[in-house]
Amino acid sequence: MCRFVAYLGEPIIVEDIIVKPTNSLIHQSYDAEESLMTVNGDGFGLGWYNSQVRKEPGLFTSVLPAWNDKNLLSNASIIKTNCFLAHIRAATNGGVSIENCHPFKYDEYLMMHNGSIQDFEKIKFKLVSLLDEEAFLWIKGQNDTQYILALFMTNFREMGIVKPASHQELVDCFNKTYLDIEKLKLAKGIVSISNYNIVLTNGERMIATRYCTDPEKDNRSLYFAEKISCSIDSHDKELKLDDVVSQERSAALISSEMLTEDEHFWKEIPMNHMVVIDSDMDVTLHKLAEVKNYA
Amino acid sequence: MCRFVAYLGEPIIVEDIIVKPTNSLIHQSYDAEESLMTVNGDGFGLGWYNSQVRKEPGLFTSVLPAWNDKNLLSNASIIKTNCFLAHIRAATNGGVSIENCHPFKYDEYLMMHNGSIQDFEKIKFKLVSLLDEEAFLWIKGQNDTQYILALFMTNFREMGIVKPASHQELVDCFNKTYLDIEKLKLAKGIVSISNYNIVLTNGERMIATRYCTDPEKDNRSLYFAEKISCSIDSHDKELKLDDVVSQERSAALISSEMLTEDEHFWKEIPMNHMVVIDSDMDVTLHKLAEVKNYA
Amino acid sequence: MCRFVAYLGEPIIVEDIIVKPTNSLIHQSYDAEESLMTVNGDGFGLGWYNSQVRKEPGLFTSVLPAWNDKNLLSNASIIKTNCFLAHIRAATNGGVSIENCHPFKYDEYLMMHNGSIQDFEKIKFKLVSLLDEEAFLWIKGQNDTQYILALFMTNFREMGIVKPASHQELVDCFNKTYLDIEKLKLAKGIVSISNYNIVLTNGERMIATRYCTDPEKDNRSLYFAEKISCSIDSHDKELKLDDVVSQERSAALISSEMLTEDEHFWKEIPMNHMVVIDSDMDVTLHKLAEVKNYA
Amino acid sequence: MCRFVAYLGEPIIVEDIIVKPTNSLIHQSYDAEESLMTVNGDGFGLGWYNSQVRKEPGLFTSVLPAWNDKNLLSNASIIKTNCFLAHIRAATNGGVSIENCHPFKYDEYLMMHNGSIQDFEKIKFKLVSLLDEEAFLWIKGQNDTQYILALFMTNFREMGIVKPASHQELVDCFNKTYLDIEKLKLAKGIVSISNYNIVLTNGERMIATRYCTDPEKDNRSLYFAEKISCSIDSHDKELKLDDVVSQERSAALISSEMLTEDEHFWKEIPMNHMVVIDSDMDVTLHKLAEVKNYA
Repeated sequence: MCRFVAYLGEPIIVEDIIVKPTNSLIHQSYDAEESLMTVNGDGFGLGWYNSQVRKEPGLFTSVLPAWNDKNLLSNASIIKTNCFLAHIRAATNGGVSIENCHPFKYDEYLMMHNGSIQDFEKIKFKLVSLLDEEAFLWIKGQNDTQYILALFMTNFREMGIVKPASHQELVDCFNKTYLDIEKLKLAKGIVSISNYNIVLTNGERMIATRYCTDPEKDNRSLYFAEKISCSIDSHDKELKLDDVVSQERSAALISSEMLTEDEHFWKEIPMNHMVVIDSDMDVTLHKLAEVKNYA
Repeated sequence: MCRFVAYLGEPIIVEDIIVKPTNSLIHQSYDAEESLMTVNGDGFGLGWYNSQVRKEPGLFTSVLPAWNDKNLLSNASIIKTNCFLAHIRAATNGGVSIENCHPFKYDEYLMMHNGSIQDFEKIKFKLVSLLDEEAFLWIKGQNDTQYILALFMTNFREMGIVKPASHQELVDCFNKTYLDIEKLKLAKGIVSISNYNIVLTNGERMIATRYCTDPEKDNRSLYFAEKISCSIDSHDKELKLDDVVSQERSAALISSEMLTEDEHFWKEIPMNHMVVIDSDMDVTLHKLAEVKNYA
Repeated sequence: MCRFVAYLGEPIIVEDIIVKPTNSLIHQSYDAEESLMTVNGDGFGLGWYNSQVRKEPGLFTSVLPAWNDKNLLSNASIIKTNCFLAHIRAATNGGVSIENCHPFKYDEYLMMHNGSIQDFEKIKFKLVSLLDEEAFLWIKGQNDTQYILALFMTNFREMGIVKPASHQELVDCFNKTYLDIEKLKLAKGIVSISNYNIVLTNGERMIATRYCTDPEKDNRSLYFAEKISCSIDSHDKELKLDDVVSQERSAALISSEMLTEDEHFWKEIPMNHMVVIDSDMDVTLHKLAEVKNYA
Repeated sequence: MCRFVAYLGEPIIVEDIIVKPTNSLIHQSYDAEESLMTVNGDGFGLGWYNSQVRKEPGLFTSVLPAWNDKNLLSNASIIKTNCFLAHIRAATNGGVSIENCHPFKYDEYLMMHNGSIQDFEKIKFKLVSLLDEEAFLWIKGQNDTQYILALFMTNFREMGIVKPASHQELVDCFNKTYLDIEKLKLAKGIVSISNYNIVLTNGERMIATRYCTDPEKDNRSLYFAEKISCSIDSHDKELKLDDVVSQERSAALISSEMLTEDEHFWKEIPMNHMVVIDSDMDVTLHKLAEVKNYA
């Protein structure tokens, strides 16, 4: 099981979020608190934007455990950005390969995933036939996440959505994508669950889904914190969150686990919901369709 | 353009072939003599058999340049085997990733490739529809070679060939595979060439094709040496080839370039031919169909 | 804290020891039973001999976690050898670098270490002045183990020991090495402990020390099994040990943890002792000097 | 032989310098124009500053060939900085290891080197005795460059230089460092040459030496361009240099090879000279002592 964190808002030094919190992603990489697997040592990735330079993000991935990668730790200490995604991996699908490390970049988008399509190998071949050629050729590795994103992008195009997509169009596109996958499973008689704790961003707004086809069987955590400001405590050198009044100067976090002990900053994304953090830092929640009813 | 060497015969230390010859594979990795690209620094691979232990080969691949990989050089100095394939890569299709390093292992088989399907990306999506599910799921990387092998294995099964395949069945299976690919290209109006300098082995017999859809435009070298014995010259410490009378105690080599200056040991595989080195070291040549006539 | 296993005896497939046991080294790499740190994900190494080819061992090291390294798992499944050392690392001294992975090769020797000189950085500079030039130039990384082995080799030469060293000469050389280090610590007023669970071999005989300067404060485990035969159980596919009568056809294991549940095969090496497994598989125990009395 | 480029001035996107020029560093990595070795595939490094965040630079090194490293190419496309050093390596001393990749970071400094102390291994052991403990412990790899920088830092401290060092103090410190090394060589009767094409920076000013103990035997190139502005040509997408009048809005480059075809922008640093680019972009040249006269 993987862990991730995403940030949008006032420019921040990456290490303030991924290294300095009490329960930072680096800490989670060898000792995750809310995860069944305590070791997330099968690689990591950091994607970040510098919108003044170009729309496409920079990507830094590695198959080394995050806790050991000097390149990651060194660069995270001076990269300042208004939007980044960071992910540590415990391989479930797709093997340990640089091609399978999250986040994944598709044009100006970054996407990362915690969860899996169980029995993915049984539907993978059929799933290809749902993809358009552009999306298939984009896939470089073997894990389920890349196929989910490729299917999402195919659906996005086939639904004729014009950028920027409205909130309802995003809901519809996620609903169709998750439903398409369940149909493939149903055709093969597969009853195992699919989990989609997913973050998707273009560097300006950020979307996340917390989703499981059978929420009673798996209920992995996903939190967000909104209208906060982040700073480093001068005493303990740890991340400190504060409420802010001004929306324009605020930030938002989405994280598999609460990064700080101030629990009141962290709200659970309700099960089978999508959250949108718009570029003006406005946050809205949207219900997704429960595909288990399909069966 | 890649370079490779394959060995079958009396057990030999791997480094005697890949390090010690005047024009060894390691030497070719930074200065290939018969190649357009002089640097083959995009990874390498070594697959080898130990038939007393199991039928499946061991595989050692890396994205480092071969000339620098201490693991390769150290282990090649004490691994003794009757069959191995070694490959150095100048990436053409598929990017530099451990998943794209030759040789590729499919059950008890190893396969490696020098050449490419030019414009492969344009037919890749369509090629998937020719594969059976087992072959598609076997693919772990993105280069053309894996798709060629997956198609060959699909055809092998669909043609109902029972192992061990006869020479004629192998010819038929390669012919169908190369023709299938040309049909896809034709359907897209692609007139660029495909090259298939390929070695395939199960550790007991070895097959190679030297093939180009337009031999006048590309004519990359492929040699074999048969009924030889290999030893290390006590003076210059280089590989020395000798003729042997006894077929049972002999060896055969297949190589992109001549490894030694004794040119008389090295025979060119004729263009668009398949060579088979059987387990009794008997060598036969077979003509392949010229698929360019298809168009 | 690291974990290791060493084998000497009848030729065996490496994976039978490092992958197949209930509590194999691969298993220990993410869940060690007798270790304070449960993750040993900071690299690994395998050194092995093929005495028919040459006296020097082959070495295969990686900074990837052992559980993920396909090269290791693939090659260990067909390498058959009469002597190997395998090590997984949880970095204590020296950082994660290929140069710091055990085992270390010095001419025909391999050496690996579980434990550390605490406060090593405080004596490292002074330690250089105890080394001869050959030993200093041999060091390629930064961890304490390489300095210990370099000091041992310096002492070996300075004591005028002629190979093969007698058991008493080995005892004397280890005693001098461990004492030299304590003297450096004493000169700096350092009272922290040093642990030396070390295996040293030339491929023909194997030596191990279980040593701590303050055995009451740290007492890390080290076991050996002697006059055994190893096989794979046909039912559960796990390693099975049996007693053998014939000394010539037997094997011995040295391991940080018991690899199997048959506890009677596993004897603890007594604290501050050296064990020697000679090439005829005869096993002897030797007491080492307690350097803590030096202070 | 290695190749490098350094930049100081108006903030710039890193790829504009290391990827976009006609003769970019990436291009030089597989086809250097002014180098004896055309392949620089033994790793690379990028060190860069973000002075608004902290004084210490971020460092990104890899043993992969630069032309293949997706992390480098992706991040270089959005990192914008006023000072960076980039280096590609053809290993001469120290082996291929992440610990031996330039540039090297020492507190807030970065340093990189093209050239070598020939016969370095013969003086390495003696060189340790010239270092202070801090400098020795700083060394993590094995190449000559790290020892040169460690000796420079030792001398800097022992000469009692207070930061910021004056130009004369820098000249004196380089002179002493290069002379110390020649004395060690002389004591061993070594007459081979030493080359020190070196760049050193703290992110605010930049210093380079072009130096050889026997300039008639080796005369490797080193250029600088000053009071320029850098932009990307809208037609050919290549780096374009222009003269600027205003010193404050200008930039300077130091490079092993001329990056563009506009030769008039590129001035050779005279042999055995040090160039200083101050934070106000003022450039001065200083003669270094000719240590060959020492012998």
